[in-house]
Amino acid sequence: MAKKNAFYAQSGGVTAVINASACGVIETARKNKDQIGKVYAGRNGIIGALTEDLIDTSKESARTIAALRHTPSGAFGSCRYKMKSLVDNRREYERLIEVFAAHNIGYFFYNGGGDSADTCLKVSQLSKATGYPIQAIHVPKTVDNDLPITDNCPGFGSVAKYIALSTKEASFDVASMCKTSTKVFVLEVMGRHAGWIAAAGGLASTEDCDLPVIILFPEVNFNQTKFLAQVKAKVKKYGYVSIVVSEGVHDRSGKFLADAGTTDSFGHAQLGGVAPVIANMVRAKLGYKYHWAVADYLQRAARHISSKSDVEQAYAVGEAAVKLALQGKNSVMPTIVRTSNSPYRWKIGEAKLSKVANVEKMMPKNFISKNGFGITKKCREYLEPLIRGEDYPPYGKDGLPKYVQPKNVGVKKKLKDFKVKL
Amino acid sequence: MAKKNAFYAQSGGVTAVINASACGVIETARKNKDQIGKVYAGRNGIIGALTEDLIDTSKESARTIAALRHTPSGAFGSCRYKMKSLVDNRREYERLIEVFAAHNIGYFFYNGGGDSADTCLKVSQLSKATGYPIQAIHVPKTVDNDLPITDNCPGFGSVAKYIALSTKEASFDVASMCKTSTKVFVLEVMGRHAGWIAAAGGLASTEDCDLPVIILFPEVNFNQTKFLAQVKAKVKKYGYVSIVVSEGVHDRSGKFLADAGTTDSFGHAQLGGVAPVIANMVRAKLGYKYHWAVADYLQRAARHISSKSDVEQAYAVGEAAVKLALQGKNSVMPTIVRTSNSPYRWKIGEAKLSKVANVEKMMPKNFISKNGFGITKKCREYLEPLIRGEDYPPYGKDGLPKYVQPKNVGVKKKLKDFKVKL
Repeated sequence: MAKKNAFYAQSGGVTAVINASACGVIETARKNKDQIGKVYAGRNGIIGALTEDLIDTSKESARTIAALRHTPSGAFGSCRYKMKSLVDNRREYERLIEVFAAHNIGYFFYNGGGDSADTCLKVSQLSKATGYPIQAIHVPKTVDNDLPITDNCPGFGSVAKYIALSTKEASFDVASMCKTSTKVFVLEVMGRHAGWIAAAGGLASTEDCDLPVIILFPEVNFNQTKFLAQVKAKVKKYGYVSIVVSEGVHDRSGKFLADAGTTDSFGHAQLGGVAPVIANMVRAKLGYKYHWAVADYLQRAARHISSKSDVEQAYAVGEAAVKLALQGKNSVMPTIVRTSNSPYRWKIGEAKLSKVANVEKMMPKNFISKNGFGITKKCREYLEPLIRGEDYPPYGKDGLPKYVQPKNVGVKKKLKDFKVKL
Repeated sequence: MAKKNAFYAQSGGVTAVINASACGVIETARKNKDQIGKVYAGRNGIIGALTEDLIDTSKESARTIAALRHTPSGAFGSCRYKMKSLVDNRREYERLIEVFAAHNIGYFFYNGGGDSADTCLKVSQLSKATGYPIQAIHVPKTVDNDLPITDNCPGFGSVAKYIALSTKEASFDVASMCKTSTKVFVLEVMGRHAGWIAAAGGLASTEDCDLPVIILFPEVNFNQTKFLAQVKAKVKKYGYVSIVVSEGVHDRSGKFLADAGTTDSFGHAQLGGVAPVIANMVRAKLGYKYHWAVADYLQRAARHISSKSDVEQAYAVGEAAVKLALQGKNSVMPTIVRTSNSPYRWKIGEAKLSKVANVEKMMPKNFISKNGFGITKKCREYLEPLIRGEDYPPYGKDGLPKYVQPKNVGVKKKLKDFKVKL
C-alpha cells in the first residue's frame, strides 16, 4: 500500500503551546517518512479540510517547524466550527472523505478540546461507515483543563503559570500602595464553566510568601455578603487584597455577574467584564480604592512565560499522536498520566475517544476550600507541578520573542468549491 | 564630623524596577560605610519620614538587598502624598528636619516621578532655610517616562517591553481566530497624559513580523470616523487588528472616552475602562467580534519580563545618587544620557532639580505617524533599545519568581507622634 499523507488541524481557542503540539506532530511525521507522506495542515482548522484549503507543511524548513515549539497561537489558523452529527449533516462528512481521498490522506490529527474530540470521534467512525480508510487521533488542547481521563490538558499549565505569577506580581504592587491608595486589586481570568484557571491564582500565596488572595469560582454561587466580609477581613489583616475572579462567576439563579446589564453613553449594552463589577461593588460597599485588570487573550498567548511542563507535554502529545497512528490506532487520544507527584513524573497514556467526547471534567469539590474563596492543599499539589519550570523563547535585537510565521503555502485544489456556512 | 545616616523613600506608583534602584542605593551605601552610616527607608514613602516610621535596612542581609534587584513593587511601601509648599505647610518641613536630626540623617534619597522631584527640591532647600545640613538627591522613576532632561525614566522600559510583547502575543492569537471568530483585540494601557506606553504597542510590528496595530494616543483627539476607517482597512487587509489604547484617550472637547457614563445594574456609576468602550464601538459600527484586555497593574509589576536595559539603568541611578551625595552634591538628580543609538550606549549624567521639578516631558510630535494611529521610525529608534534584553528573576520549585519580602524592622522612635492627614 502506498504511504498515506496526514492531515493536521487546530481547533477552538488557541493557546501558548498548541503550536508545540503541531511541532510534535510534524517533526515526528518527518522522522517517519517511510510510513507517512506529507503533513497537510488545515488552513483555519477543519474549515481548511472542508474547503480543500490545505497548507503544505513540507514547504516549511526544519527551522521553522522547530520554532513552532516556542511560538504561541495557532500557526495554521484555528476556527470555532463544530460539525453537526452524521445524521444532521452527512454532506460535510462526505466532503471530508472526498478531500482526504483527493489528497491521499490516511491520518487525521485534530488538535483541540471537548468539541473537537467529538468531531474527531465522528471522523474516526467514517472509516467504517464509508469504507475509506482513515485513522483519526485527537491531540488534546484546552486552557480550560476540562478533558476527561488525561491528568491535565496542554495549554492549561501555561495559563495557570501566567495567572499565578501575575497575581503574585500585582499583589506585591498593591501591597506597596495600600497605605494611601489602592487596597483592592481585581483580576478577571478565563473559565466560563470551570474554575481551573481561577484556582491558579491561589498558587500566588505560598508558605514562603504569604499573600492575601480571594478567588471567585464559577463553581461557587456568588454571595455578596460573604464575599464582602472576606474582603474586609483580608484588608484588615494585610492592608490589601487581591481578588481573582473567573469570568463565569454567577449568582444562585445562574445569572453571570459579568452580564450586569451595563450600558455606556454611546447607548451600547453589555460591555461585559466581571472585574469592574466586582471592583465597583467593593468600592460602593466598603469604600476601598481599587484597580482591576482583565487578562483575556494575554493569559493564553503568554508564551514568554509558558511552563516547561506544559511545553514538554504539548510536544509529547503531538509526538504520541503520530506514534499511535503508526501503530494502526484509530479513535484515540494520547493522555498525560501522572505517575508521581513528588517528584513530579508523568508519562503518555491513551484514551478511547468514545470515553473523551462530550465529557467535561469539573474541578473536584475537595479542591475548593470550605469557605469557597480559596484552594485546598490537594488542589495546590495538583496544580503546582503544572506551572513548574520556564521555557523561554529566543529573543531578537528588537527586544521581542522570535515567534515564527510559517509561509503557509497552499496545496493545489483538485475538487470543486464547497461552501461552509460560518 | 561624624558620618551621617541616609534616608531613602519610594514615592508614587511603583514599578517593576524601583527596587533595583533601592538595591543600587543600599549596596552603594554599604560599600561606602566609612562615609555613610545606615540607610533608613521610609515606611510607605515620605509618610514614614513624617511619622518617624523608619525601616532599618541594615537589618537586612546582603542576600535580601541583592534580591531587591529582581523584585517588583516598592519593598518598603510607597505612597501618593504630595507635600505642599513651604509657605503652605511649614510644619511638615520642620517635622522632617526634626526626624532627620533625631536620627542623624544627612542624605535624602527620594525615588519617584515629577511630583517627588518637586518634594525633593523643597527638601534640598531646607538646608539653607533651616541651617540643618541635608543633601537631597532625586532618584528618577516613572512608568510614564515624563521626566525632563533624562533620556528615559527607569520603570518605563519594562512596561514598554511588556506592552510590546503582549501586543505581539495577542496579535498572533487573534490572527489564528479571525476567520470564524474574533477579529479585533483591544488592549488598554496606562498613560493618562502621555502616550509613551501606548507607543510601545507599535513595537510589536516589525519588518520581520508585520502585524496590524492601531494606537490610540492621548495626544491625538479621538475621531470616531477616522478610527473606524482604520479598523476597517486593517481587517480588510489582514483579517484582524490589534488596538492599543491609552487610558487617557479623549475627544476634542477633552472628555475621556473611559468616562463614558457607564452604569451597571447594581446602580454603580462609572466603571471606567476605555477598552470595553472602544470594543463595543467597533462591534456596534462594524459588526466585528472582539476581545479586550486591561493590563492595569500587570504591566508595571511584570518583573518577570523586565527589560535588561531598564534593570541596569534603575540600579545605576540608585548607585549614582549615592555617589553624587558623597561628592557633596545637593538638589540634583542622576540622569540617563544616550550617547549612541546604534549600538545603544548610555551613561549617567546629572541634572539640577530646579530644572526637573514641575516640567513634564511630552512625546515629540514626530514620534506619532501622520495619520495619528502609529509610531514613526524616529520613535521606534528611541524605544527599541529601552526594551532590549531580558533579566529573568530566579524561580522557585513552586514555578514562581523568587521575589523577596524584606523584614522591614522599624527603628525605635525618639520623637512625639505626628499626624499626617492622608
